[in-house]
Amino acid sequence: MSRYFTEEGSVEAVNSRMGKDVTPRLAAVMASLVSHLHAFAKAVHLTQEEWEYGIEFLTRAGQKCSDERQEFILLSDTLGLSMLVDAINNRRPMGATENTVLGPFYVRGAPVRQMGDTICLDGKGESCRFEGTVIDLHGTPIEGARLDVWSDNAEGFYDVQQPEIQPKWNNRGVFVTGPDGRYDFVGIKPVSYPIPYDGPVGQMLGHLGRHPYRPAHMHYLVTAPGFQKLVTHTFVGDDPYLESDTVFGVKKSLVAPFEKLPQGSTLWRSPFDFLLTPTS
Amino acid sequence: MSRYFTEEGSVEAVNSRMGKDVTPRLAAVMASLVSHLHAFAKAVHLTQEEWEYGIEFLTRAGQKCSDERQEFILLSDTLGLSMLVDAINNRRPMGATENTVLGPFYVRGAPVRQMGDTICLDGKGESCRFEGTVIDLHGTPIEGARLDVWSDNAEGFYDVQQPEIQPKWNNRGVFVTGPDGRYDFVGIKPVSYPIPYDGPVGQMLGHLGRHPYRPAHMHYLVTAPGFQKLVTHTFVGDDPYLESDTVFGVKKSLVAPFEKLPQGSTLWRSPFDFLLTPTS
Repeated sequence: MSRYFTEEGSVEAVNSRMGKDVTPRLAAVMASLVSHLHAFAKAVHLTQEEWEYGIEFLTRAGQKCSDERQEFILLSDTLGLSMLVDAINNRRPMGATENTVLGPFYVRGAPVRQMGDTICLDGKGESCRFEGTVIDLHGTPIEGARLDVWSDNAEGFYDVQQPEIQPKWNNRGVFVTGPDGRYDFVGIKPVSYPIPYDGPVGQMLGHLGRHPYRPAHMHYLVTAPGFQKLVTHTFVGDDPYLESDTVFGVKKSLVAPFEKLPQGSTLWRSPFDFLLTPTS
Repeated sequence: MSRYFTEEGSVEAVNSRMGKDVTPRLAAVMASLVSHLHAFAKAVHLTQEEWEYGIEFLTRAGQKCSDERQEFILLSDTLGLSMLVDAINNRRPMGATENTVLGPFYVRGAPVRQMGDTICLDGKGESCRFEGTVIDLHGTPIEGARLDVWSDNAEGFYDVQQPEIQPKWNNRGVFVTGPDGRYDFVGIKPVSYPIPYDGPVGQMLGHLGRHPYRPAHMHYLVTAPGFQKLVTHTFVGDDPYLESDTVFGVKKSLVAPFEKLPQGSTLWRSPFDFLLTPTS
């Protein structure tokens, strides 16, 4: 058998070149990658100029990356790949709270607070009470569930994006449930914000007629012994970007009610229960 | 119709987001890219850790790029994509000389030389006479065909890789055919060499059990009025890497004879005719 390259046999030419000692998983992933990459080029009859543009785009994306900026994650996010990988690896039974992307702004080590405490330290924004119960699939409250929560501030920035302006741990906190499984804390009604769009990915969105915004959301990382880790958001139900999240993070089941309260200093209330999936 | 993301509807979720004013070609290319990218992730059930490795690999590749180094072209080359794009865009009729990749070492403006001249200026290597006829598909010689030729030197480096060591235009030259369509010049029998492998792509080849070598070859860019541009190589027929070119550039029809000459200062002779395809 000749192993010379032909247009028809291009995938086989490349994949047959792998050595015998390659781990089975690497071999399977690379073979599939080459197969889909070539199928794409053949399907669209990719031109030399388009190929050159692709090389140049990837180069600019790579050169935009720094300790504070990850352009390839933005690319993966905006092409729906990040959400797809999240979905594939976090299939949940009917009724269990769904996962969504962690995002780049999670920070380990936020302070543990008491139920009812406020996480908003800069005094900006419309205050909102977040409350609900952490339960299992039978509706039984889970004691000792740990909720790590975070959101942007009223101007659409996370504290780590503005370390010189915002107080440390602004709009972040950890809450641990008691025997009733209940949680409640006061934050702000989050606001929508754009992902960084001053790079190649922002240009791509422009060419595709897409905006760079994410709808307003509160992040949750919920863990409890015996249950699968839940990484999710709840979304503000009336957000104008709810059906066009630029990173595709919204799932219908994660849209939460935000009810205007009639009086008092807290303006809004957002109830949401988290249903955790057992580990086995 | 809900445009929220689901695992099953992931491709539609992303592609339906494109604006109405996107050019049809961009829309078609991006829709196919997203479709194949998602199909790949689903087919292999891509894990979160593998996704992170991919992000990190692309980032390292991007950061390796400079004015002298193009790691994404190496990646495209070693995954067979460059050859595939070349093949898709240069389909030729039966019998016509086939295309192969231009490579990164072509330089415009090499000196025009007389037939029979030598292009080897550093005196190293085994001298070889390259000769043949440029003809059309009926076998008629083509007058005024311009052959731009280049190869590495006896140590496996192109002149532009060693500007301080090699004479300018070493192993390069342009030859223009007369009424008989004949060409002949003296170069060296080229030698095999590795592509740059001190970066992420070299690591990838290592993980895949592949070597980084290209089999020895002479480059040709042949143009003539009324004919399609031919970008190709001829390969040294007894090269050990002939069936494992790391960039998949070898085609069976491009393997040329290298005959040992019985006497004289020129040690080898490599005859090869170029059959050009008319532009219409």
